[in-house]
Amino acid sequence: MSKLRFDPLKRKWTVIAPERALRPIDLVQRTEVPDNRDLCPFCPGNEAATPEEILRFNGKENGNWSLRVVPNKYPAFRIEGDLKREGYEVYDVVSGIGAHEVVIESPQHDLGLTDYTPKILYNLFNAFKLRIIDLRQDIRFRYIFAFKNYGLNAGATLRHPHSQIIAMPVIPDLTVSMLKSAKAYYEQKERCLLCDILAMEYRSNERVVLENADFVAICPFASFSPFETRIYPIKHSHDFTELNSSELMGLSNIVKEIFVRLDKSLNKPHLNMVIHTAPCLNKRPAHPEYWNSIKYDYHWFLEIIPRISGYAGFEWATGFNINMVEPEEASKFLKLVSVT
Amino acid sequence: MSKLRFDPLKRKWTVIAPERALRPIDLVQRTEVPDNRDLCPFCPGNEAATPEEILRFNGKENGNWSLRVVPNKYPAFRIEGDLKREGYEVYDVVSGIGAHEVVIESPQHDLGLTDYTPKILYNLFNAFKLRIIDLRQDIRFRYIFAFKNYGLNAGATLRHPHSQIIAMPVIPDLTVSMLKSAKAYYEQKERCLLCDILAMEYRSNERVVLENADFVAICPFASFSPFETRIYPIKHSHDFTELNSSELMGLSNIVKEIFVRLDKSLNKPHLNMVIHTAPCLNKRPAHPEYWNSIKYDYHWFLEIIPRISGYAGFEWATGFNINMVEPEEASKFLKLVSVT
Repeated sequence: MSKLRFDPLKRKWTVIAPERALRPIDLVQRTEVPDNRDLCPFCPGNEAATPEEILRFNGKENGNWSLRVVPNKYPAFRIEGDLKREGYEVYDVVSGIGAHEVVIESPQHDLGLTDYTPKILYNLFNAFKLRIIDLRQDIRFRYIFAFKNYGLNAGATLRHPHSQIIAMPVIPDLTVSMLKSAKAYYEQKERCLLCDILAMEYRSNERVVLENADFVAICPFASFSPFETRIYPIKHSHDFTELNSSELMGLSNIVKEIFVRLDKSLNKPHLNMVIHTAPCLNKRPAHPEYWNSIKYDYHWFLEIIPRISGYAGFEWATGFNINMVEPEEASKFLKLVSVT
Repeated sequence: MSKLRFDPLKRKWTVIAPERALRPIDLVQRTEVPDNRDLCPFCPGNEAATPEEILRFNGKENGNWSLRVVPNKYPAFRIEGDLKREGYEVYDVVSGIGAHEVVIESPQHDLGLTDYTPKILYNLFNAFKLRIIDLRQDIRFRYIFAFKNYGLNAGATLRHPHSQIIAMPVIPDLTVSMLKSAKAYYEQKERCLLCDILAMEYRSNERVVLENADFVAICPFASFSPFETRIYPIKHSHDFTELNSSELMGLSNIVKEIFVRLDKSLNKPHLNMVIHTAPCLNKRPAHPEYWNSIKYDYHWFLEIIPRISGYAGFEWATGFNINMVEPEEASKFLKLVSVT
């Protein structure tokens, strides 16, 4: 079983998951995603190559499905086993109890960023919602999140379009940090930090890329990477799974639009897409105090990060990044690019 | 001029450095480091292609030098200008005052990891020491650090062996986090956290790779990446520049040995090498309280991180990583690998 280990100096958790080294691809310098279509475990006809299906959306397409969710064959976290929290002198270890699922987004083997239809994205976000709601019933899980790696530079190891859903027994460092900032701001002002940021971004209009009735896409003020884009729900909500069907469609439309604009602006970039939603609000004895006000102070969002610059020694040394493109310029570029 | 911007939610600084986008290499998906030896600005004979030299070690080699330090032609931070700290509503901005220097490590254009001699590394670490001591005289600088990107996957954009030295007007997030952990531990126990970790690692002997009179190399308990190795000075010291010549040679020897073992174990990996030393202890009005005890509680170290796995959506979403190789296995492997 994998384990979470805590670095007492850097105050970061790492998942030590030796099972995943069974994937030989992980220990060589890669230059491209291997792509053998006949052996693709995610293609229609090869359904037997994946572990047993957790969720399926039917479709009229090849294979009679439009989306499948299956357990990850090389999971970083597993459902089975006891959740133990242990200490070894200065070190801390938590067993790797959780879930690691793969969303096969389409029967089509190859989708460029411009091939993502609102329907494919709607199915994907709906699958995220249904799986997060289901996994939340397991009170061992503290955090459940969903993300997509698109292309080799973004960490994809298979070409067939897919995303991942992970449930973990700890709240990640970055999430804790965001929860704390949001709580501190709210305590002082009784206003949500992200609602205030949105109001300010509308006023300045320098970094807003586009919006629809429910969502706005913005290149953040302190963008870590060039052309980083955050998509915020305009209505305050701490929880991605509160989206109704019409809002899910609004999200799909704006993500589709950003995918196309990034594809045209950056010539087919690789990218990550991540949903930063609230942690599980299970009633537990050791409930951290910042969970009490989370519905008021935390505001979920979706992040899209094109991987056009590397993560080098500077970033490793400091935890921050050098971004060569001003977010104001990126926003202007994304707004003006011809999408026809 | 570049600017540091602060993300109030994630609590991270980003350097927005549009000047660096002049390097066209930064905005395309790269698959290899470009390498035109005739045009190499770091080769002997092309000295005029670099800005004016800051430091030179003479040598009998080609070009009559063994090492040069020059300003980075595309700096993330500049010496010239006023240091301003400004707020825009919820956002914070600091001007990009600092220094960004390049250490040309050898006249030889191409060095494999196994080609690094103790002499080359001694010169490199000595140059780091001399430049950090010199830059520290500028009281605008809060943090000065040195690092090396080796190979494309580690962020190198030129093949000729080089490292970088950066001085910044803020203390990076990661450093602040380490300073705080070290201080909290010391306040409670009056012992250095890293000295305690070293004692524990010696007792267990599961993660120690090798040692000499002054240094020990360890695969850390919560290694972020496979085969990550930290080199700790055995004698407590908060400051890399306190090393005398004999200790600099001890550091060069152990780094050389780790380079060779990583090269043999992982088949010529790309890697980052980073020195985590204490921030500048300038006497300033706004001195953070954790600087008072830093000589006792902080312990500098050097980190070597082979870049054999990517930084994907999981890491982006959580701030932590999945490592497929147990540090105990990595340590055993590095100890046993044949280096002849």
